[in-house]
Amino acid sequence: MQLTEIATPAALIDEARMAANIARLQERMTALGVRLRPHVKTSKCIEVARRQQAAGAVGITVSTLKEAEQFFAAGFDDILYAVCISPDKLDRALMLCRRNCRLTLLTDSVAAAQAIVAKGLAEKHAFDVMIEIDSDGHRSGVEPEDDRLVEIGRVLHAGGARLKGVLTHAGSSYDLDTPEALRQLAEQERRLCVRAGERLRAAGLPCPDISIGSTPTALSAVHLEGVTEVRAGVYVFFDLVMSNVGICRPEDVALSVLTTVIGHQPDKGWVIVDAGWMAMSRDRGTQRQQIDYGYGAVCDAQGRMIDGFVVSGANQEHGIVSHRDGTVAQGIVERFPIGAKLRILPNHACATGTQFDSYHLMPAKGTPHIWPRFQGW
Amino acid sequence: MQLTEIATPAALIDEARMAANIARLQERMTALGVRLRPHVKTSKCIEVARRQQAAGAVGITVSTLKEAEQFFAAGFDDILYAVCISPDKLDRALMLCRRNCRLTLLTDSVAAAQAIVAKGLAEKHAFDVMIEIDSDGHRSGVEPEDDRLVEIGRVLHAGGARLKGVLTHAGSSYDLDTPEALRQLAEQERRLCVRAGERLRAAGLPCPDISIGSTPTALSAVHLEGVTEVRAGVYVFFDLVMSNVGICRPEDVALSVLTTVIGHQPDKGWVIVDAGWMAMSRDRGTQRQQIDYGYGAVCDAQGRMIDGFVVSGANQEHGIVSHRDGTVAQGIVERFPIGAKLRILPNHACATGTQFDSYHLMPAKGTPHIWPRFQGW
Repeated sequence: MQLTEIATPAALIDEARMAANIARLQERMTALGVRLRPHVKTSKCIEVARRQQAAGAVGITVSTLKEAEQFFAAGFDDILYAVCISPDKLDRALMLCRRNCRLTLLTDSVAAAQAIVAKGLAEKHAFDVMIEIDSDGHRSGVEPEDDRLVEIGRVLHAGGARLKGVLTHAGSSYDLDTPEALRQLAEQERRLCVRAGERLRAAGLPCPDISIGSTPTALSAVHLEGVTEVRAGVYVFFDLVMSNVGICRPEDVALSVLTTVIGHQPDKGWVIVDAGWMAMSRDRGTQRQQIDYGYGAVCDAQGRMIDGFVVSGANQEHGIVSHRDGTVAQGIVERFPIGAKLRILPNHACATGTQFDSYHLMPAKGTPHIWPRFQGW
Repeated sequence: MQLTEIATPAALIDEARMAANIARLQERMTALGVRLRPHVKTSKCIEVARRQQAAGAVGITVSTLKEAEQFFAAGFDDILYAVCISPDKLDRALMLCRRNCRLTLLTDSVAAAQAIVAKGLAEKHAFDVMIEIDSDGHRSGVEPEDDRLVEIGRVLHAGGARLKGVLTHAGSSYDLDTPEALRQLAEQERRLCVRAGERLRAAGLPCPDISIGSTPTALSAVHLEGVTEVRAGVYVFFDLVMSNVGICRPEDVALSVLTTVIGHQPDKGWVIVDAGWMAMSRDRGTQRQQIDYGYGAVCDAQGRMIDGFVVSGANQEHGIVSHRDGTVAQGIVERFPIGAKLRILPNHACATGTQFDSYHLMPAKGTPHIWPRFQGW
């Protein structure tokens, strides 16, 4: 199979770029003395996670029970489900535990902790559970000084669950774009999560693990004292949002969408391609960043950026490629003829990847081959 | 299976609403004397299309060759592939034709028309082809007065392809929100497409079909003189974008996402649910409309809107439910307890539906059952 034989649109992984991305974060985490637990929600691909594991990662993080089931079936048995569980999902989680999956659950409420404990007592199973800490106000979690933290810990511990520790995710790091702000948020994420662990321990509760992480903070932290593990997902591919955040270059982005030119509007300087929002996703994460890439940055078939060209508009199966600055590009019919192949770098690798049921791995040498990925819940 | 037994997030179809939506457009098209060729890119579901067919639709419209293949395998044999074809896709299209699928292709360029003709001559097959007309400047197509229109027609006709007619899609109708503007655009779409057909006929070329359509213009046209068929997709489910356009009410939206409450941030008035952007899609189509619904409008488990509550923020598997006007809702922990079920109406049914591999059909009476849908290319 050659590049030109791949039916478009298709999701490509640049193997050399991915390998460099994996090595970069793994080396950093090893140097800082913590374990790396990659978040596989980005790739949802067994082969990608195996590369991360081979580089030194310990365990995986998942965002759905389907991910847990799929990766467990492929031999991954140390799995952290990093979304607060609702009581109706406990049966499905228990099925994994019964098959000897070392599955860790997450909660940030007394009510859910009580449900976990009740289920565990009824089923004679001690669930492994972490408590989610809110370190930046962007989403879930209890604040480290909140009385509920110790209350949740006591409910879990007294009820026979194994209190594994505390977890936080400084997701607001995606909104930053200076090294200093990123370093400050990384330190805040570390400090508040460590503090939460100290409070649990001071209350006589166990707290072996302190788990933090987001790709921008993981790559910005100066030290990780008190932390045992870091979680990060999008670093494996990177994307244009991460480039705008300032922690990678567009040339590091390992995921792209291969597309074919299907038309032109020469008077407007538009090239029409067969990668619309169905292929790129509707993610417009660069819209409010310093460089707005529309629905993606345009590269030639070999993955070299074509300066200034972006997917400026998208319908379901149509992408409009034009100059980012609005100028009407000349000679586009000759430069990008009908049938020509382009690659589009995504705003957000997690969102674009999930539009596809497989990746085409592009090795530095040799022919592409297919890596399955999965979708849904 | 009861509603409470459905694993969340899940895509639900309200059967009664869908039936009413199908009947509404079908009756209108019949009254206006044209055939309705539904666009199945919205549902990608055989069972949904069968309902449309049973109501009187003639043939289907698709946006990918995979849709053509899947629907042909299910017995639909009159299929219009309404995206301009690139030469590399002709082999796959030919395979369908060889199996007696009545597949119509689309082009808006001399180059692609030449490729279609060359392939047809080489394979001794006369492709059915329509020419795409640009009636509102929003994407693809040749303008009706453009010399290329007749040139493309001549290339196809002289080369042995069957010139089936002209097609346009006034997609800019999604940007409108008054009945008068919609009526004007519907008339513009009709007039320009009919004019393109007249120019082909005046040049001695065949043009049996005049195909127009978008959901907003189809529901706004006063007469359709000269038109033979109308295409529309999203009307089958409707969505919040269409509600803002003014052609349906939120109470007509037949697609919703069932979700479970997984947490709260009471100080902020936030309810955290397990429908994030993976479930809702990243589509923010209501962002620039009169009512911004965030990532979706919140309903109770029975589908009744809870006034003022929207999914105001979303991460991959987390949705943040809060008041649209920014007020901090009181008593949310008691009102929306952990484990409670909610339904979220989508901004854009095509984008939300495609995040799922099946729908749960919710009949007015009886228990839900599963309708498969497909994804990808």
